[in-house]
Amino acid sequence: MNKIGLKSSPNSAKHDDMANAIRALSMDAVQAANSGHPGMPMGMADVATVLFSKFLKFDPAKPDWPDRDRFVLSAGHGSMLLYSLLYLTGYKDMTLEEIKNFRQLGSKTAGHPEYGHAKGIETTTGPLGQGLAMAVGMALAERLQAARYKEITDHYTYVIAGDGCLMEGISHEAISFAGHLKLNKLIVLWDDNSISIDGSTDLAVSDDQAKRFEAHGWDVQAVDGHDATEIEKAIAAAKETDRPSLIACRTTIGFGAPNKQGTSGVHGAPLGEEEVALARKELGWPHTPFDIPVEILDKWRAVGTKGARLSAAWEDSFKALPEEQRTMFNADINGNLPSALDDAMLDFKRQLVDDAPAWATRKSSQEALKVINEKVTTTIGGSADLTGSNLTKTPQTEPVTAEDFSGRYIYYGVREFGMAAIMNGMALHKGFIPYGGTFMVFTDYARPAIRLSALMEQRVVYVMTHDSIGLGEDGPTHQPVEHLAALRAMPNLNVFRPADAVETSECWHLALQSKKTPSVLSLSRQNLELVRKTHTADNLCARGAYELAPANLEAKVTILATGSEVAIALAAQKLLESDGVGTRVVSVPSWELFEKQDDAYKKETLREDTVRIAVEAGCSMGWEKFTGPNGGFIGINSFGASAPAGDLYKHFGITAEAVAAAAKDRL
Amino acid sequence: MNKIGLKSSPNSAKHDDMANAIRALSMDAVQAANSGHPGMPMGMADVATVLFSKFLKFDPAKPDWPDRDRFVLSAGHGSMLLYSLLYLTGYKDMTLEEIKNFRQLGSKTAGHPEYGHAKGIETTTGPLGQGLAMAVGMALAERLQAARYKEITDHYTYVIAGDGCLMEGISHEAISFAGHLKLNKLIVLWDDNSISIDGSTDLAVSDDQAKRFEAHGWDVQAVDGHDATEIEKAIAAAKETDRPSLIACRTTIGFGAPNKQGTSGVHGAPLGEEEVALARKELGWPHTPFDIPVEILDKWRAVGTKGARLSAAWEDSFKALPEEQRTMFNADINGNLPSALDDAMLDFKRQLVDDAPAWATRKSSQEALKVINEKVTTTIGGSADLTGSNLTKTPQTEPVTAEDFSGRYIYYGVREFGMAAIMNGMALHKGFIPYGGTFMVFTDYARPAIRLSALMEQRVVYVMTHDSIGLGEDGPTHQPVEHLAALRAMPNLNVFRPADAVETSECWHLALQSKKTPSVLSLSRQNLELVRKTHTADNLCARGAYELAPANLEAKVTILATGSEVAIALAAQKLLESDGVGTRVVSVPSWELFEKQDDAYKKETLREDTVRIAVEAGCSMGWEKFTGPNGGFIGINSFGASAPAGDLYKHFGITAEAVAAAAKDRL
Repeated sequence: MNKIGLKSSPNSAKHDDMANAIRALSMDAVQAANSGHPGMPMGMADVATVLFSKFLKFDPAKPDWPDRDRFVLSAGHGSMLLYSLLYLTGYKDMTLEEIKNFRQLGSKTAGHPEYGHAKGIETTTGPLGQGLAMAVGMALAERLQAARYKEITDHYTYVIAGDGCLMEGISHEAISFAGHLKLNKLIVLWDDNSISIDGSTDLAVSDDQAKRFEAHGWDVQAVDGHDATEIEKAIAAAKETDRPSLIACRTTIGFGAPNKQGTSGVHGAPLGEEEVALARKELGWPHTPFDIPVEILDKWRAVGTKGARLSAAWEDSFKALPEEQRTMFNADINGNLPSALDDAMLDFKRQLVDDAPAWATRKSSQEALKVINEKVTTTIGGSADLTGSNLTKTPQTEPVTAEDFSGRYIYYGVREFGMAAIMNGMALHKGFIPYGGTFMVFTDYARPAIRLSALMEQRVVYVMTHDSIGLGEDGPTHQPVEHLAALRAMPNLNVFRPADAVETSECWHLALQSKKTPSVLSLSRQNLELVRKTHTADNLCARGAYELAPANLEAKVTILATGSEVAIALAAQKLLESDGVGTRVVSVPSWELFEKQDDAYKKETLREDTVRIAVEAGCSMGWEKFTGPNGGFIGINSFGASAPAGDLYKHFGITAEAVAAAAKDRL
Repeated sequence: MNKIGLKSSPNSAKHDDMANAIRALSMDAVQAANSGHPGMPMGMADVATVLFSKFLKFDPAKPDWPDRDRFVLSAGHGSMLLYSLLYLTGYKDMTLEEIKNFRQLGSKTAGHPEYGHAKGIETTTGPLGQGLAMAVGMALAERLQAARYKEITDHYTYVIAGDGCLMEGISHEAISFAGHLKLNKLIVLWDDNSISIDGSTDLAVSDDQAKRFEAHGWDVQAVDGHDATEIEKAIAAAKETDRPSLIACRTTIGFGAPNKQGTSGVHGAPLGEEEVALARKELGWPHTPFDIPVEILDKWRAVGTKGARLSAAWEDSFKALPEEQRTMFNADINGNLPSALDDAMLDFKRQLVDDAPAWATRKSSQEALKVINEKVTTTIGGSADLTGSNLTKTPQTEPVTAEDFSGRYIYYGVREFGMAAIMNGMALHKGFIPYGGTFMVFTDYARPAIRLSALMEQRVVYVMTHDSIGLGEDGPTHQPVEHLAALRAMPNLNVFRPADAVETSECWHLALQSKKTPSVLSLSRQNLELVRKTHTADNLCARGAYELAPANLEAKVTILATGSEVAIALAAQKLLESDGVGTRVVSVPSWELFEKQDDAYKKETLREDTVRIAVEAGCSMGWEKFTGPNGGFIGINSFGASAPAGDLYKHFGITAEAVAAAAKDRL
């Protein structure tokens, strides 16, 4: 245990008052909720006080100020630290009432910080390690923006991370990536308290974190996390390095709670009335619960108002820009698409119908991206070391390097999870539309970050190629089977599985238009013939499912298909109709968009009076909803195998013949 | 590019012949398949030749010899390296015919090594980083086994890892964990070739790997990966350290292919006929494709037969053990459960019915584990830093530490993915039944390893607590919604969601009995009343779903429910029957087991003649299969929220009243 209490404190009384205000609000709120994590806010109160009062550039009255510093509480369980700071510095959203309603239904003060609940919460955190990785994305976005708008871009990204964040694998991806790109305006304050939930961190970890970060090209300092002067010096020094910075802040978890501090007992449970009372004594904080004396509140509010001068100065710089730049900047920050995009996409689609290319949809995606990246200058592409496979790079997107941030393409390395979290950070920063590729099967690696894209309603586009056994020889470790189902199960995620070049361009267009929903594009490795032979101005994929090929005879059968299996559906239609069975084919590029249609459209599309067979080279889960209890499903409910794609489709019985037979069995 | 060809080689002719045999088979097989990764096998042929010929303890005639060294090809795309070695050293499974059928349907030589396809393949690899983490699990299992059977346990675990493996986040978790436990018999050979798929690794990474590994407590050496003498010295030295070892092997990817070596062009595509011919010249390998001259094959086979002496010596040591120890060891390795377990579980279940405890199912799990861990001595528990929340520790399981491996409990730290992969490694090693806990929502973090448990048919038990909005205040980041669906979509995974203490004990029993299927136990944070009030000798959960409460009136409604919502179903039953609507309740602890039942049982359980309503505090996906098109679902298809659990159930409308209303609407 470290030193404790005011007597031995090297800090000014002003600092201690301000820090203790955080401690008091945190322990009181957790106690009132009878649930939460007091240990981290109490331990990191000194660090946070120095950061917010001396360094962080922010204006509570203009929380969306684009050039504000970003603050990410990666150890999200310490949410009361953030809520306290937002209240104390004067964010209007964050009233004392909200603090008192910590962890209650409908409050802005959720158990973990939730993006969108209140201004000043820069990102949702809680799933450990991801805050750090998202902060890397924000710091990257700052560099990218500075390359475009250097006169008005100069902000830092600060992170508070805990031991848990640094144990998570994603911390490696994030740290390594940040070191590689020399993201020098990223400063991580590590709450080095040697305690995790199970007890002392000695139980599970013996890392030399300083050496570790240095190995990845970071600047590293260590300070007493309760010494305001040391903290201030370290942050000032960190701002001057040419590398990302780690500041190890040695703290006592639950600082001030005399019997519980320095133990795991203070990590994730209320202190209890008695210990709260003792902590009040220990800290020299005689005030009643939730009472912040006006003179202390004033000190904090002065910090908040200081930011107003800085934001006003920035406004002046902004106004000094040429109008064209101002307009473009605002459009970038608002995430608007240029109006020229619609026409370009329409022209492209028309051309596709004329040319009828038999591209793999990953190739169709690249061709669509060539059109998009020409018109939309805010897209930032990338791939987790599969650029030539995902086909995510276009001539417009030069690589981003540590020396030059004017490019638009990120070599993420073999870091799927990191890539996804970094894209979340870029999207949250605003000004960019990130998209990134890997194999569909590795959505599993990225899944926790895809979930945060969805939860935070961020427009991130996942370009997931090699989307079925159709990838062939790489075998079951690389063949998604359950992934479409697993992704469709996730709330607020649009999963697109286009059937050809036309549908791919339509789905890309929809993904860009979905400002509050991330998208997964599920794309084939193998070539696919064009199935959309007639040009339509309408985006047919926008309805999620549509009749692609009507029956020539009276419709007895409806085949529902997605992606690469639409061609199989069309072949099955031929077989059935040649046997006198009227058959229609419905393409289903997006379940989610289809489910948003009205009942009448759903009915006329699904046609319950017909025998319905679904065909998709994935597992059957959920298809019963569309095929009904007497319907059929042709797909694969086991793991795949290693062989040429054609052999696999036959082996697993995903063929036109099988579809036709399944339909006939049910007539 | 490094030096190339025989002229400058510091190696013996014998070594070069043996290494070139690997190179030739690898490039020929990839060429014949017109698909695959020749670069890594050609680059690492020298290292592998030294490892297999001078160090690796194995007997091709006894591939299951328990004390063999383990070899893990973490860079699984270089599968031809492993297949070549297995063929050359004389594993019967691995014929030349199999090599010629590389990547073809039904061959043992899948694109990536698949566990179970052929002896000598210790684990499935391909998803990068996981091989390394599984090797950590194997090396841990060796230490655990040595603590029990020291006379007959002394083997090393060797890994070949690539740049991609070391970029993945899981490498951090694995390296940090191995360093913490000082797993000194783990030796990692890093294929340091500076090339990944996108090109030079400089594009994406600037790590100082030596420093990084040292920061985690590893011994580090660096060698010329084409110098047999250097390699030999390094491995010999690595065996003597008291820490895990990294040997950085500087290699030229595709060594021997004169125009393509040292480039990403040789990573994942056939060399082409012309380059293959040139490589033959460069390497001084005049033999025709797939032809290994008998004198070279003899050299390799001599290596294989050398192992027979070692395995015979081990047999002698084994025979010298007391019979009781031999019997126990064989039972451990075979993974048999003691016959006493069945009775103990039955007694426990009877006691539960008598006591009727209203435990959270996480608590019920702990109580079941107390019984299990008393009878089954091979269970190895653990948690990813949530021991007190997952309740995975019992009095029988003392912590495993670097100083003492006689314990049975692992503090995995905040490393969910690493934990899962390490458990896979322990299961593959044999001798242990690993189980580990985290929050259900973090199955997302562990998902790629859960998938490998399923694909490799390993008995790993995932104890996933806090399994719904019922966890309350921690909010949407911690509340699983889509996770049951996402896990049920995965092939060969049993997902159990027990409703009370009795069902929990039954599900635990089933999980242990499932030798070829991993299990997820989905467990509540909140207390649940006992719903199984009558003792049955039969394990009712074994059928996946069963009628828990028959209707008292003529059955008009069937309510299907799982886990914590079974109580809600029973309350709804009361409401409906008091309104004169005969209602039965079916508990559905496992979809997977239910789907294996015969049609008659399914029909009598689901009762299609009744209105069927499913209730589960998760998303609706897939339930249509059981409820039919006119059925209903009460659950949650959005993200959760932060609030006390009771408030959330009301807020999201998961109540007995809502179930009853949904049923009445459909009558």
